[in-house]
Amino acid sequence: MPPTTTPPPNFHKIALIGRYNSPSITAPLQQLLKFLESRALTVVIEAETARQIPLPGYATASGPELGENVDLAIVLGGDGTMLSIARLLAPYRVPIIGINQGRLGFLTDIPLSAMEETLNAMLAGQYREESRSLIEAELIRGGQVVDCALALNDAVINRGLTGSMIDCEMSIDGRFVYTLRADGLIIATPTGSTAYALSAHGPIMHPQVPAFVLVPVAPHALTNRPIAISDSCVITVTLLRGMEASLHCDGHAQMRLQEGDHVQVRRAPYSLRLLHPQNYDYYAMLRQKLHWSETPGLEKNST
Amino acid sequence: MPPTTTPPPNFHKIALIGRYNSPSITAPLQQLLKFLESRALTVVIEAETARQIPLPGYATASGPELGENVDLAIVLGGDGTMLSIARLLAPYRVPIIGINQGRLGFLTDIPLSAMEETLNAMLAGQYREESRSLIEAELIRGGQVVDCALALNDAVINRGLTGSMIDCEMSIDGRFVYTLRADGLIIATPTGSTAYALSAHGPIMHPQVPAFVLVPVAPHALTNRPIAISDSCVITVTLLRGMEASLHCDGHAQMRLQEGDHVQVRRAPYSLRLLHPQNYDYYAMLRQKLHWSETPGLEKNST
Amino acid sequence: MPPTTTPPPNFHKIALIGRYNSPSITAPLQQLLKFLESRALTVVIEAETARQIPLPGYATASGPELGENVDLAIVLGGDGTMLSIARLLAPYRVPIIGINQGRLGFLTDIPLSAMEETLNAMLAGQYREESRSLIEAELIRGGQVVDCALALNDAVINRGLTGSMIDCEMSIDGRFVYTLRADGLIIATPTGSTAYALSAHGPIMHPQVPAFVLVPVAPHALTNRPIAISDSCVITVTLLRGMEASLHCDGHAQMRLQEGDHVQVRRAPYSLRLLHPQNYDYYAMLRQKLHWSETPGLEKNST
Amino acid sequence: MPPTTTPPPNFHKIALIGRYNSPSITAPLQQLLKFLESRALTVVIEAETARQIPLPGYATASGPELGENVDLAIVLGGDGTMLSIARLLAPYRVPIIGINQGRLGFLTDIPLSAMEETLNAMLAGQYREESRSLIEAELIRGGQVVDCALALNDAVINRGLTGSMIDCEMSIDGRFVYTLRADGLIIATPTGSTAYALSAHGPIMHPQVPAFVLVPVAPHALTNRPIAISDSCVITVTLLRGMEASLHCDGHAQMRLQEGDHVQVRRAPYSLRLLHPQNYDYYAMLRQKLHWSETPGLEKNST
Repeated sequence: MPPTTTPPPNFHKIALIGRYNSPSITAPLQQLLKFLESRALTVVIEAETARQIPLPGYATASGPELGENVDLAIVLGGDGTMLSIARLLAPYRVPIIGINQGRLGFLTDIPLSAMEETLNAMLAGQYREESRSLIEAELIRGGQVVDCALALNDAVINRGLTGSMIDCEMSIDGRFVYTLRADGLIIATPTGSTAYALSAHGPIMHPQVPAFVLVPVAPHALTNRPIAISDSCVITVTLLRGMEASLHCDGHAQMRLQEGDHVQVRRAPYSLRLLHPQNYDYYAMLRQKLHWSETPGLEKNST
Repeated sequence: MPPTTTPPPNFHKIALIGRYNSPSITAPLQQLLKFLESRALTVVIEAETARQIPLPGYATASGPELGENVDLAIVLGGDGTMLSIARLLAPYRVPIIGINQGRLGFLTDIPLSAMEETLNAMLAGQYREESRSLIEAELIRGGQVVDCALALNDAVINRGLTGSMIDCEMSIDGRFVYTLRADGLIIATPTGSTAYALSAHGPIMHPQVPAFVLVPVAPHALTNRPIAISDSCVITVTLLRGMEASLHCDGHAQMRLQEGDHVQVRRAPYSLRLLHPQNYDYYAMLRQKLHWSETPGLEKNST
Repeated sequence: MPPTTTPPPNFHKIALIGRYNSPSITAPLQQLLKFLESRALTVVIEAETARQIPLPGYATASGPELGENVDLAIVLGGDGTMLSIARLLAPYRVPIIGINQGRLGFLTDIPLSAMEETLNAMLAGQYREESRSLIEAELIRGGQVVDCALALNDAVINRGLTGSMIDCEMSIDGRFVYTLRADGLIIATPTGSTAYALSAHGPIMHPQVPAFVLVPVAPHALTNRPIAISDSCVITVTLLRGMEASLHCDGHAQMRLQEGDHVQVRRAPYSLRLLHPQNYDYYAMLRQKLHWSETPGLEKNST
Repeated sequence: MPPTTTPPPNFHKIALIGRYNSPSITAPLQQLLKFLESRALTVVIEAETARQIPLPGYATASGPELGENVDLAIVLGGDGTMLSIARLLAPYRVPIIGINQGRLGFLTDIPLSAMEETLNAMLAGQYREESRSLIEAELIRGGQVVDCALALNDAVINRGLTGSMIDCEMSIDGRFVYTLRADGLIIATPTGSTAYALSAHGPIMHPQVPAFVLVPVAPHALTNRPIAISDSCVITVTLLRGMEASLHCDGHAQMRLQEGDHVQVRRAPYSLRLLHPQNYDYYAMLRQKLHWSETPGLEKNST
């Protein structure tokens, strides 16, 4: 990821999004607003953010209107907020900057304490743009697409509450791969590889790797292992057996599944444009998030 | 496990239980009935079995009545049937023999094809008795025990359908152990260590080891590992956060949990008395069930 | 992988390689020779194969001479033989066909029983060509490349026999990633992801994914997980501490390491050209090799 | 583990052991000596410690002489020092107290900063005694025991440097369990379950659980899982194939193995008597060592 040396970007109209249900975000949001105004930028506040935190006098917008009208979005919150906004804005190719309110996020990598200094540089064109793939998941029933959703992290087929595993059949580009009895199956992007998929013993995948990883959750067959496949593949999961099974995208949009349903997953035709400060380092972020520097665990058995 | 050299047991009244919803069990059940009658034994048919498969002229019983009135139970079915009957009869110290209809089970270890020959020997006292611990799980709400259940395999605290992990706090004998964010937490007996817990990366525990194993399902913290503790411990799991979470015992009895609920798990005061043929070999059964003899997997990289 | 529709290939001069130290290979080799002669093809026997199995009257060649003079190589043996020949011939872009003598191999996917029929079709141009990346590993000591080797499966840094783990530092494209205390570190290609790396809990990677996977063996830090990175990266592993540590390529070429040594790993500038029959199916091969169709393991807990 | 209410112990003659090759231990050792003298206790300095750190005027002893002549041993160092001393003194039933010089150890649980205060209480009888099992490993060749060693953590059969896995056969109490192709096999006590075995994906076992855990390292067969068995079992591992394989006990004593050798492992007839302060809490120690309080890892995907 070499430094971007292109001319300063045309970031004139800027969307501002705050974490939902989080009153403590008011002060930082106001600070951010002042900062952007001082630079004579036009700010549009995401409608739900505006509803929760009264910031009178600003334009608000939501949904497609937001996506069509801004040059850049700044998210102030955690990775959860980032996920929702990414799904919303990615189709409009709006680049996004993430500022974390508290703990460092995988996606919200700018600390509040360095917000102004960092944004100053980034608005002047000193940033690294990273492209993150998204997943499009369709629910097909009786030959018809009955529902669909986007995911930046993962599409997950889950068992219901009955205490029984689900049985499903997985195929890739129309070729049968395996039948799976498990609690669930995670189809994750590289971005999602450090989220739920990692808990379920999946590998970490660098965002630059053009792949999805399929990670079974608590698979019945002990030989069932995570498998990474090209993100140009189309994955089809058919629910063979399982009451109350469901499909989640980013742990969010939920669709109830019926036996015989097909879930079809492919890469979305657009990617998230994620902007990082120049000194962004994916591995440094991993070290910090996963406590790699600390070697938790075991004592050396030497004298 | 040395051969039992005690005098022949007093197996006079014998309970017969067949797999539910399984018409194909009729013929083997009739064969078994004839066999037992030919030996002048008294047979009591478990009520639900009798309801599903008409075997007129036999006494039937269910629940406590069954437990109090028989000297031995013979289960014809799979491990699922065995689990229900074990929970029912263990409190009455009734020994159980398991005959598998199809595939070898972990608990139903006698093949149908060898049924008569094997039972002949066992009814004459040639068997190995194995003691299998059970779990008692209580749901405590507002200081009151509001529900309870037995388990031969496991008690499992599960997340709901919302796609979010649960947060819970675990303590052992009143000492705080950890807080856990995960899909669930499995508390398994040695018997259950080869069931769901194994799918969730728990260890196998020989039935002779007096321990429970606590296995998190898809834990958020990467340092969270399965831990085996003495089965004389009392485990308390408190649900801190989690909508629609539930408690399952043997994947069966289901209790809906509320935030603040405590699940208390201890060893039941009685054990399952499981009777095996003299040539029973736990490790042989593991090999067969887990396909150890076949070394599925990898090619040797030698020339 | 669509069927190859290009005109029939110019396969005139064919190298023949048999598994080493394997007398039972004589008959199939002779059969294969007869088959190739009947098609008026020129056969060159790999020198070591010729030394072990007397097949008088044929040209022999080894090393570069073999690579420079043939249009196609046919390997009769197992994946181990294939690995050595692939490392030898890949730089010369010679396509290779693998016939397995006994068990199906990941790379030697044509059974002996279907040899003639399959080769007939393939020599007529009915095959799928697959490109498999190779690893180039260099050992750098005191600023000098002192040794190097190729690998089709993996480059592995291993601890010595002293019973202590090694400490090493890993960086990617010059960026520090982590320090690792472990038994070893595996850097695997997609081809190698189903070999040693899989035993060490790495993910399976489809050959089409342009990535390497870094899999620690028995890492001291519990948060250390396999990570997949783009195969355009250069990986540098520096041995910080570890007596008798060594570097293996494909479990074969062995270099003894000293503290302070750097191992530098990158993708080789050429790939293995692997030819499969038209009906080749990577997932079918996985299923067969990993026994996926059999769901070894666990019993369903249902009644 | 209830508080010990027995009369104050007769701790008159006290062995003092310092970490080897660690000059920084001189000052704490001198402080500890002064403290013990001020209480009119007789101190015997372990010979190797005395050789490395000149503390003139004290009696020294080593080996059996040390074990036979002291009532208590105090170790100042890390878990490595503790392991060696435990193997030396356990046969003499000498209780041991562990003081860690730097980082908290699993076995050396008293921080230097609280040394005097804690020892004051413990020497007055306020301590918890914990019994830790040890392993006796014998190497049997041609029907003869040719070597043997003790282990507090683990006995490990390791592959050599050739890059090939070893093949071995495992049986328990004379019953065949499995053949294993792997990098190695760890047989760990509960104490060792948090050491090397944990790195190799073994479970944690509370010291109160009377079991060993068998953990394969990088097993070839994907269905091979850790298994816990009663510590009254005798485990026999036969090396079928493997050049330069070796047996390590506590990562230390090393025996070179030949094909056909048997390694026989059983519980030693004596246990380590480990003394802890009254407020010792095994789970608190786990939390601190494994960083459980910090939930390293993953972000919650909520908004």
